[in-house]
Amino acid sequence: MAKPPDQSEYLIAPDPQAPRLTRAVRGVDHDGLETTIRVVEERPLTIYLNSQEIVTAMTIGDYPEYLALGFLRNQRMLRDDDQIERVDYDEELETVVVRTKRKTDYEDKMRRKTRTSGCAVGTVFGDMMEGLEGVKLPQTQVRTSWLYALSSKINRTPSLYLDAGAIHGTVLCQGDRPLVYMEDVGRHNAVDKIAGWMLSEGISADDKILYTTGRLTSEMVIKTAMMGIPVLASRSGFTAWGVEIAEQTGLTLIGRMKGRRFICLSGEDRLIRDADPSLIAEEPKRAGRKGAA
Amino acid sequence: MAKPPDQSEYLIAPDPQAPRLTRAVRGVDHDGLETTIRVVEERPLTIYLNSQEIVTAMTIGDYPEYLALGFLRNQRMLRDDDQIERVDYDEELETVVVRTKRKTDYEDKMRRKTRTSGCAVGTVFGDMMEGLEGVKLPQTQVRTSWLYALSSKINRTPSLYLDAGAIHGTVLCQGDRPLVYMEDVGRHNAVDKIAGWMLSEGISADDKILYTTGRLTSEMVIKTAMMGIPVLASRSGFTAWGVEIAEQTGLTLIGRMKGRRFICLSGEDRLIRDADPSLIAEEPKRAGRKGAA
Repeated sequence: MAKPPDQSEYLIAPDPQAPRLTRAVRGVDHDGLETTIRVVEERPLTIYLNSQEIVTAMTIGDYPEYLALGFLRNQRMLRDDDQIERVDYDEELETVVVRTKRKTDYEDKMRRKTRTSGCAVGTVFGDMMEGLEGVKLPQTQVRTSWLYALSSKINRTPSLYLDAGAIHGTVLCQGDRPLVYMEDVGRHNAVDKIAGWMLSEGISADDKILYTTGRLTSEMVIKTAMMGIPVLASRSGFTAWGVEIAEQTGLTLIGRMKGRRFICLSGEDRLIRDADPSLIAEEPKRAGRKGAA
Repeated sequence: MAKPPDQSEYLIAPDPQAPRLTRAVRGVDHDGLETTIRVVEERPLTIYLNSQEIVTAMTIGDYPEYLALGFLRNQRMLRDDDQIERVDYDEELETVVVRTKRKTDYEDKMRRKTRTSGCAVGTVFGDMMEGLEGVKLPQTQVRTSWLYALSSKINRTPSLYLDAGAIHGTVLCQGDRPLVYMEDVGRHNAVDKIAGWMLSEGISADDKILYTTGRLTSEMVIKTAMMGIPVLASRSGFTAWGVEIAEQTGLTLIGRMKGRRFICLSGEDRLIRDADPSLIAEEPKRAGRKGAA
């Protein structure tokens, strides 16, 4: 494997050595030999907005504050003009409480959600389509040389995925630079953690690219558009509804990005083809995702 | 690629030609050439139990009746002794209504769920842990020759996955025979469709093996145990909580199953090692899952 890229490019990179994120588990392999492998953790985290319990997410457990902020933001329970007074994480209770200056009450909103859905995707969807009409994504340009550079750097970055598998990654990028690389057992959590970081740091979405290892489903496309990010790229495939929403919101949607290959199904006008695909190396077999389906 | 296995083994096999399940979408590839690819559909389906709206699932859209029955069963909203009077699917309204002889009211249960969760995994989890103490899985035996045969047959079975990618598969098996192969954009839906089929047909879980392309998360392990199936195998990886629940319920959990390799992290006592792994072919690269992460 080629040497890892320069880690100093990242503002936040994965921490595969963090003891709280993986566990060694003993088992038996195909030859009947005892073997110990590292597997990722999966924990409940209950998110409160002021005094109201909103949701329990299953998460790997890092960056709980960003996850809470990003989830609430992407659910439109935090508004642009909200002043966030405190975010308190309690590791033992597995809770995080976001406190705003504004009094909030989403009892009605939550009751409606229960009636119309109950599984994650449905729940998120019902709420989030509302805000999409207002979304206007900037007409930035995206160099294909950036996409190739990002894909190569991200694949070689030390990560929980490379160590333990069974996890998704989402990376906020700017030009050819990966800025914030979040991993989680749920790909929606990885995106929400990035949204929470952007909200905390006051980061503009206009010149950003979001890269994900997961599929380009309606949920992923909606979250990206709601965050105001004009470009979403993935090494995985598409769903028809994901493509439709990308077209409606004018988002550039790139999938099946491996080695020199990719397919753009929406917003192709943002692409500047400054890289010669025939000069891009095919992906080594080893770079194929390991058990993260 | 080797020729597909005998399709007559299946009671239900994927139907990659079904026009309603995929859509041709035009885009542009890495060389700037126009290209048309098939992508899977993703639709809302709202499930009612008698007069009560329970959930909206995002699904590929086949077998809506099985999905509704299996979802309600795995949520413990349908009881063992419930008499199901009708299941009505309305394609235009995207609804399915399950009617039981017993009067049902899950307003309380649903309100509680809303408070404790809101995203799919959390919601399912909160409810489903309750029933797990009562689960007693049978001490059946599992031949490793069956596991190898199943893995090989399933990988070569024509499927939406092989045609369009971005989809998960779950297969109910008996011995070395794959019986029912369900696919869906959400892996939880694929499992629920199998649960619905088993409920409809009155199929015993005792001698069954469940094979999935997806990760062995807590949600997958809980559903399998709740269905009474003693063995869950996957080509993907594990989460720590998934392993814990498998150990608690005595479920045989096998992951990272590719070619001759696999790892068993729970319930290894059920395995009968009647196959010589060194005689099992490694998986051809082509069999790697395409964009379904």
